[in-house]
Amino acid sequence: MMKVGLLGAGRIGGVHAAAITAHPRSALAAVSDFFPENAEKLASAYGSVARSTEDIIADPEIDAVLIATSTDTHSELMEAATAAGKAVLCEKPVDLSLERARACQANVAKTGQSVMVGFNRRFDPSFRALKEALEAGEIGKSELLSITSFDPAPPPVEYIKVSGGLFRDMMIHDFDMANFLMGDTPVRVSAVGSSLVDPAIGAEGDVDTAAVTMTYADGRIAVIRNSRRAAFGYDQRVELLGSTGMLQAENMLENTVVKSTAAGVTGAKPMHFFLERYMPAYRAEWDAFVTAVEDGTAFPVTLDDGVAALAMAEAATRSHQIGAPVDLSEV
Amino acid sequence: MMKVGLLGAGRIGGVHAAAITAHPRSALAAVSDFFPENAEKLASAYGSVARSTEDIIADPEIDAVLIATSTDTHSELMEAATAAGKAVLCEKPVDLSLERARACQANVAKTGQSVMVGFNRRFDPSFRALKEALEAGEIGKSELLSITSFDPAPPPVEYIKVSGGLFRDMMIHDFDMANFLMGDTPVRVSAVGSSLVDPAIGAEGDVDTAAVTMTYADGRIAVIRNSRRAAFGYDQRVELLGSTGMLQAENMLENTVVKSTAAGVTGAKPMHFFLERYMPAYRAEWDAFVTAVEDGTAFPVTLDDGVAALAMAEAATRSHQIGAPVDLSEV
Amino acid sequence: MMKVGLLGAGRIGGVHAAAITAHPRSALAAVSDFFPENAEKLASAYGSVARSTEDIIADPEIDAVLIATSTDTHSELMEAATAAGKAVLCEKPVDLSLERARACQANVAKTGQSVMVGFNRRFDPSFRALKEALEAGEIGKSELLSITSFDPAPPPVEYIKVSGGLFRDMMIHDFDMANFLMGDTPVRVSAVGSSLVDPAIGAEGDVDTAAVTMTYADGRIAVIRNSRRAAFGYDQRVELLGSTGMLQAENMLENTVVKSTAAGVTGAKPMHFFLERYMPAYRAEWDAFVTAVEDGTAFPVTLDDGVAALAMAEAATRSHQIGAPVDLSEV
Amino acid sequence: MMKVGLLGAGRIGGVHAAAITAHPRSALAAVSDFFPENAEKLASAYGSVARSTEDIIADPEIDAVLIATSTDTHSELMEAATAAGKAVLCEKPVDLSLERARACQANVAKTGQSVMVGFNRRFDPSFRALKEALEAGEIGKSELLSITSFDPAPPPVEYIKVSGGLFRDMMIHDFDMANFLMGDTPVRVSAVGSSLVDPAIGAEGDVDTAAVTMTYADGRIAVIRNSRRAAFGYDQRVELLGSTGMLQAENMLENTVVKSTAAGVTGAKPMHFFLERYMPAYRAEWDAFVTAVEDGTAFPVTLDDGVAALAMAEAATRSHQIGAPVDLSEV
Repeated sequence: MMKVGLLGAGRIGGVHAAAITAHPRSALAAVSDFFPENAEKLASAYGSVARSTEDIIADPEIDAVLIATSTDTHSELMEAATAAGKAVLCEKPVDLSLERARACQANVAKTGQSVMVGFNRRFDPSFRALKEALEAGEIGKSELLSITSFDPAPPPVEYIKVSGGLFRDMMIHDFDMANFLMGDTPVRVSAVGSSLVDPAIGAEGDVDTAAVTMTYADGRIAVIRNSRRAAFGYDQRVELLGSTGMLQAENMLENTVVKSTAAGVTGAKPMHFFLERYMPAYRAEWDAFVTAVEDGTAFPVTLDDGVAALAMAEAATRSHQIGAPVDLSEV
Repeated sequence: MMKVGLLGAGRIGGVHAAAITAHPRSALAAVSDFFPENAEKLASAYGSVARSTEDIIADPEIDAVLIATSTDTHSELMEAATAAGKAVLCEKPVDLSLERARACQANVAKTGQSVMVGFNRRFDPSFRALKEALEAGEIGKSELLSITSFDPAPPPVEYIKVSGGLFRDMMIHDFDMANFLMGDTPVRVSAVGSSLVDPAIGAEGDVDTAAVTMTYADGRIAVIRNSRRAAFGYDQRVELLGSTGMLQAENMLENTVVKSTAAGVTGAKPMHFFLERYMPAYRAEWDAFVTAVEDGTAFPVTLDDGVAALAMAEAATRSHQIGAPVDLSEV
Repeated sequence: MMKVGLLGAGRIGGVHAAAITAHPRSALAAVSDFFPENAEKLASAYGSVARSTEDIIADPEIDAVLIATSTDTHSELMEAATAAGKAVLCEKPVDLSLERARACQANVAKTGQSVMVGFNRRFDPSFRALKEALEAGEIGKSELLSITSFDPAPPPVEYIKVSGGLFRDMMIHDFDMANFLMGDTPVRVSAVGSSLVDPAIGAEGDVDTAAVTMTYADGRIAVIRNSRRAAFGYDQRVELLGSTGMLQAENMLENTVVKSTAAGVTGAKPMHFFLERYMPAYRAEWDAFVTAVEDGTAFPVTLDDGVAALAMAEAATRSHQIGAPVDLSEV
Repeated sequence: MMKVGLLGAGRIGGVHAAAITAHPRSALAAVSDFFPENAEKLASAYGSVARSTEDIIADPEIDAVLIATSTDTHSELMEAATAAGKAVLCEKPVDLSLERARACQANVAKTGQSVMVGFNRRFDPSFRALKEALEAGEIGKSELLSITSFDPAPPPVEYIKVSGGLFRDMMIHDFDMANFLMGDTPVRVSAVGSSLVDPAIGAEGDVDTAAVTMTYADGRIAVIRNSRRAAFGYDQRVELLGSTGMLQAENMLENTVVKSTAAGVTGAKPMHFFLERYMPAYRAEWDAFVTAVEDGTAFPVTLDDGVAALAMAEAATRSHQIGAPVDLSEV
């Protein structure tokens, strides 16, 4: 039974607390948070205890830590936890600063430990089935990837201010999905973005609507579209054209009811947001972590993956700023 | 070039006039109607002439007649036209009286001519593709057939009065579709029906909502559901469960636009009614007629098929009346 | 915290053990089974203990029992458990004998306790959403119901022998679904059935393919289609035509991936069988039970519902045997 | 009755010959082609006559000409035909040279005549319905457009050589569709492209796979994806995210049959290519031309539209060559 310390008792921390508890081979040993009362509340809901982050990392009884704190603490906590010999699962993004993330990567490497990064979408059953079909050769060689990722509604501007911007905060998932499916990182990134959804987001210098085109060394192309608002819910689709066919992962719907009236034929909306849509993915991600630690095998998503996605976000941010493509080798 | 006389200038006559004219190897030579002004109007729209039915049948220059008159004249006109050596395509149903239809069948047989019956749905591209997939063994052996056929709105009660009732007028198409797909006629028919849509239909002794279950000598089962009203349009579906799979023919939609809003994900309705939905089928039906006549091959839908469907309608009508199953051998 | 004794450690018992354990307000206090080693195994997997059925029912510490034993023991166990003052959730069907079920109904009534019957499909999110849309008037008045229920593969003949036959064992769920959606029981049931899937099923006097038509006092009609085999998986659909529209609950698919190749456009199959498909329904069912017991409110599915569905199964079985409709008042 | 001279008897000329003939208010008066035998053949199939292009343009009896010749002759023929006072419908693209197209635009303007350009997709029923829904405010303000346009298979390299390249030959339709739906031309175009489908296309300096991102003065964004090969057929989709919803126009399928087997749930492929898919669009386009000429109203697609799309193709071509965005004002 793996004893797990959960660092961070926010919304995503709650998701992980449930997954850790439900897993037959892991237990939620302790919870910490910047606001101790949050840690208390989450811990008691799952029959666990609240402790300080330092305590948890120092406790030799704790086997693993899950880092779900604010992004600016990720690097430091990964370094401390791996130095303490813990198995670590860290939420994305690894950092807002590519430089800091690379330093963290080096520091973690010195500990001889490795870190799994929480790109949960890789564990979504549909994206996984798409990847398996691709690897089974069902559409031949991949050529043109398109990722659509629209949130149901923009976050508060207070969040935007500390988010690092759309490319680092939101599209980071799509950069990783591209790496996952294309099996390579791009050589060049070209981004455009606008503030069409909420002028307050534009006032902060950020965008809420964006399109990024990426090209690969072998000529393949990927397009990512993001919007902070889709009135109909959480739109999460992938489409991959290959030499002998196309694979699409469509949205998961709230239910399967279809209503036909004089007004048309209406089905359910996509599941509202990431907690509902990716709940099976969060569970599968945690199982993959536990299994890899138990078996001593490599993590399926590594710190290198986290840094690679961050570099693409950095390139996209710069491309948007200068209005020209940016080579990934430049960032 | 086949010279065609069209008997009947009503709504369905207009559909046929267009198909005859558009076909590269047939020409609309003349049109007749009970109301001569209707014949005039339709003829002039297609550059043809109005004549009397008798004239048309007697004219040796006319190669073929298409009977699209009121049902009570079908048998007589089939007899007269085949006696005059014409190739004949007759609209369904062949008659409202099974006895009269059988007499017609015998009389036509004596002429040595044959008649094609206008079960246009057999020529619908989707139903045809379903049949071809079945015959190609793609779902193994057929076991359980379900036909759904809902009209957008009930006809006027004046029409109901002379229609012969739902089973003979509306479900006759579905009986023929069952024969087409099952490759056999059933041994037993069990019908239930109600007047739920329009009380005036019930007041005429007819039903507007019905379900019929049919069993075959080899144990297979077919279910037909009819309603005179589907608020969303013309619902025409077929579903066939076989030993290794299932085939479904879904509705054809008005367009392919999908709208996603906070209210749900809405697509277009089915094409409104039979003129739109079955236009390709009417064209293919006419082509099959012309081709069979030219090639001297058997018609793909025969008077026997028309009588078989009528017998099933008769059995269903009786089953509904007595509240018990009726063997097809009894009618 | 409700302490629950689980009677029956078979496949469905395992499903319930998981739901009882996962629920925040219930605990799996004990497990029994005809084969004690089965009880031991399931109990240990969930940190519970194996005891005898008698012990569990007699134990005043046990608040509720869930009856998931073989059908022939249901009535007796419901009687014993309610007599002992337990809250009871009993798997369907309540009995194979309508007479015995009615006696049980009377005996349970004398205890002043009530029993919830495990018609889990009432708690399926899509069927529930369909029901809510109906009750919200979104399709006007219901007129014509169609329920499709195909299993992926037939059970072993050994199971068939003790199952009570397709109408009591399999279609019982659909009878209850009809009652749930139509808000009434039918007045007349007409059934046809065949053995097309496995001749061994026919040799036992049972059918594996069936269609039942039911009529209601107000003229409404329902059709149920069952097959013991659908090569593509578990087919569970409901379609309800109303005066102003239609509601359909479609299958839940294994994933959302669509593959387009020269061979066509292929999506995932329906979830394989009831454990996967109805897992959310089992969880919601258990939550409804716990909540009703806690709140002292009426169960959402009662023993009366169980007896009503059994009476319909009895009528269908008889209708199939005599080849004629059977009035529900006759059984 | 409008008397029409058809210039060009190739594949697309054949499509137009059928539409001209079928229209109740136009007649195919004459056909010309660079190869007179092609003109003869097409003319005789439609009961028309073959003449020289010069004859047709000079004939005062001819009301309108439809230019379906090779692209390098379009400008000259538009100038000659408008100078002769004809109503003109010219196939896309107006020219491969933007400079020449602009000269043509000026020359045509001097004649006082106008030209309709054959962007047939504007008349596709689904794209039209999408546009109407947008204009009706059904998704609020448009924000992010995505156009997918994949051909079933690449053309011969001989065609590629004279095509002007993917952006001018193939994506020109999508540029016009963007203008149609966005109601504006972009300010900036950024293109990437590769030769992944056929190395021979790359050897000619052309691409077969491309993605273009366009930005508008008001911040809106459009993405176009093209491939010369989709193994599953002709993929023609449009997706428009707006402030209160999203509109999608999906592919039209060959039929509505769905097959469910152990291998999955398979539907029909998209209609194979543009002749099938856009046949209704070609008919509607011709009707719009005839109606506008008869009514003396402005053409729904003008030479200005043709030049605007060509300028975007020019900008995309240049952007692809230099590896940087190009402002539309620069071309």
